[in-house]
Amino acid sequence: MAGVDGGIMFPAERLRDWTQEVLQKVGVSRDDAALLTDSLIEANLRGVDTHGITRMLCVYVERIRRGVVSAKSNLVVVRQKASTALIDCRNSIGQVGAAHAMGMAIEKAKKTGVAFTAVTHSNHYGMAAYWAMMALPHGMIGFSSTNAPAAVAPTGGCTAMFGTNPFAVAIPADKEIPVVLDLATTVVARGRIVLHAKQNKPLEPGWAFDERGVPTTDPHTALKGLLAPIGGYKGYGIMLAVDFLCGILTGSNYGTHFPGFLADNMTDPTDVGSVFAAVNVESFMELPEFTAAVDKALVEIKTSTRTEGVKRIYVPGEIEFEMRADRLAHGIPIPEPVVKDFVALGEELAIPFPEA
Amino acid sequence: MAGVDGGIMFPAERLRDWTQEVLQKVGVSRDDAALLTDSLIEANLRGVDTHGITRMLCVYVERIRRGVVSAKSNLVVVRQKASTALIDCRNSIGQVGAAHAMGMAIEKAKKTGVAFTAVTHSNHYGMAAYWAMMALPHGMIGFSSTNAPAAVAPTGGCTAMFGTNPFAVAIPADKEIPVVLDLATTVVARGRIVLHAKQNKPLEPGWAFDERGVPTTDPHTALKGLLAPIGGYKGYGIMLAVDFLCGILTGSNYGTHFPGFLADNMTDPTDVGSVFAAVNVESFMELPEFTAAVDKALVEIKTSTRTEGVKRIYVPGEIEFEMRADRLAHGIPIPEPVVKDFVALGEELAIPFPEA
Repeated sequence: MAGVDGGIMFPAERLRDWTQEVLQKVGVSRDDAALLTDSLIEANLRGVDTHGITRMLCVYVERIRRGVVSAKSNLVVVRQKASTALIDCRNSIGQVGAAHAMGMAIEKAKKTGVAFTAVTHSNHYGMAAYWAMMALPHGMIGFSSTNAPAAVAPTGGCTAMFGTNPFAVAIPADKEIPVVLDLATTVVARGRIVLHAKQNKPLEPGWAFDERGVPTTDPHTALKGLLAPIGGYKGYGIMLAVDFLCGILTGSNYGTHFPGFLADNMTDPTDVGSVFAAVNVESFMELPEFTAAVDKALVEIKTSTRTEGVKRIYVPGEIEFEMRADRLAHGIPIPEPVVKDFVALGEELAIPFPEA
Repeated sequence: MAGVDGGIMFPAERLRDWTQEVLQKVGVSRDDAALLTDSLIEANLRGVDTHGITRMLCVYVERIRRGVVSAKSNLVVVRQKASTALIDCRNSIGQVGAAHAMGMAIEKAKKTGVAFTAVTHSNHYGMAAYWAMMALPHGMIGFSSTNAPAAVAPTGGCTAMFGTNPFAVAIPADKEIPVVLDLATTVVARGRIVLHAKQNKPLEPGWAFDERGVPTTDPHTALKGLLAPIGGYKGYGIMLAVDFLCGILTGSNYGTHFPGFLADNMTDPTDVGSVFAAVNVESFMELPEFTAAVDKALVEIKTSTRTEGVKRIYVPGEIEFEMRADRLAHGIPIPEPVVKDFVALGEELAIPFPEA
């Protein structure tokens, strides 16, 4: 999981207000700050702290202050057909480009049934699920994917050529919670290896390779090496397809040409490409009929026979949905070192970080 | 791999002619027989013998003769928008519905940039790659996916709720061979377990579970148990998304409701759902610019540093492409027991199976 276990609890709304002010102070418009903040706080609420303010805010702010990412958005639709659009984001904040592209996909899918849009010259867009989920209130199935800095070698190789290249799918339900699948195409995230290294805990077999491409369970060796794709050569193929769609088809960086897009790159624009799709359910079936069928199928899965010792069978997105309810009620945990960073950032910008 | 290692070699064209005659003899129209035969022979040529005449022909013929699948096609477009279509196949041959759906996706994508089509009340459609590859000569990226009989449990469960639910992606290149990714979302196919069982050879860890959901390396135990999804809970999520798109969105069977669609079901119509998509490259970038960039990226991957002992790094579809050239030149191997089946079928239908 991508969540943090401990920390000081803060109400989501207090973190939201402070984050918006911080972003506006470094030059982000009111609307863009609200959007970017919402995507980050939603990640925290869902327990995906790796994509929340916890890990992202200081990095984003630093990249904006150094001009590596433009504070001001400047989006231009460079190609457009009835069901497609390519948006040149001109180094705007990734979330601004993503919201616009997914918004266009939804509007187009209302008319034509399905749409597929893309951004180029963009930046890190945060949690993939946030964009796919935009489709849900419109009775649509949402999809989003992005490439990322190379951390995985092709099968048989030992040069990192592919990122964790995540994708997300959101499928509306009726009374059940919607299906929200959001996964990196590596067996585990790099952060998981870092955690094991800190604890000197061996990795499980199949998680990583050393720098020569040999499987390893030593976390320190793995950190200098390569992550393993899901399903071996199958995951390698999925990553390649994601990279070719997000990187090549959009005219963005790909493969080894993809520079870092977070703390690993404080100098050069990243030129990320991402893709978005929306399928209007009513092009295939009446929405109430579909969501009722989804509910039925979800219940069948959740109530199917459990393996001994397993308390509950989850469907994709369910853990995050329950985490969201819990964190809305009890607050978002911010680890103490991150609180210190936030206090320091608040002092520097004269926007004091709130008390818990 | 899904190929056979030995057998009697037959020229592809001789197998093609005989297969077409056999299909017409059991009531399939000339055009439908040509299409179905081509999809099967292409699978054999690509080395995917599990989806070629080797494994499929006798089963298809038997299902057609028993009326489990209609020999005559009867396709009706029940919903349609500018970029979508739902085709009711009324129990027609799966390949006929698939060809029509992918053809509609390509025609629609020429106008609107992208299209997404689906079939319902259809049948086993063979090799997923065949449909995705239809997009290539049109300068498009193709996609296809289908659900299948349940063989995989949700994470934490021990009831088979999902099929191997494969998907295929085809991406055009210029001088390099196109990318053709075609994968089942299980770590290995059931056929691989059967092969190990025949040889009393233990499975690799991570391939399968016993019937209680406990990991096993015993092939005989695994055959009574469950296949493992790629990437654990990640693959479970992908399978679920495929099943909901192909099964639920199209109004077809899904999950545990999906009956067998091959030799395991000689009594009831299967009601398979499948989906197809085409993305017109020129909606995003000039085609020559795109295919040149794909070539460049493929060369970068193929010439990247190899792990010790590895002779070559392959890209998705390359092995199958080279197999095709080899089998066109040297013939398609048909294992002796299958030759006997073909000879018997030929005698029964008064269409003698040709000499090698």
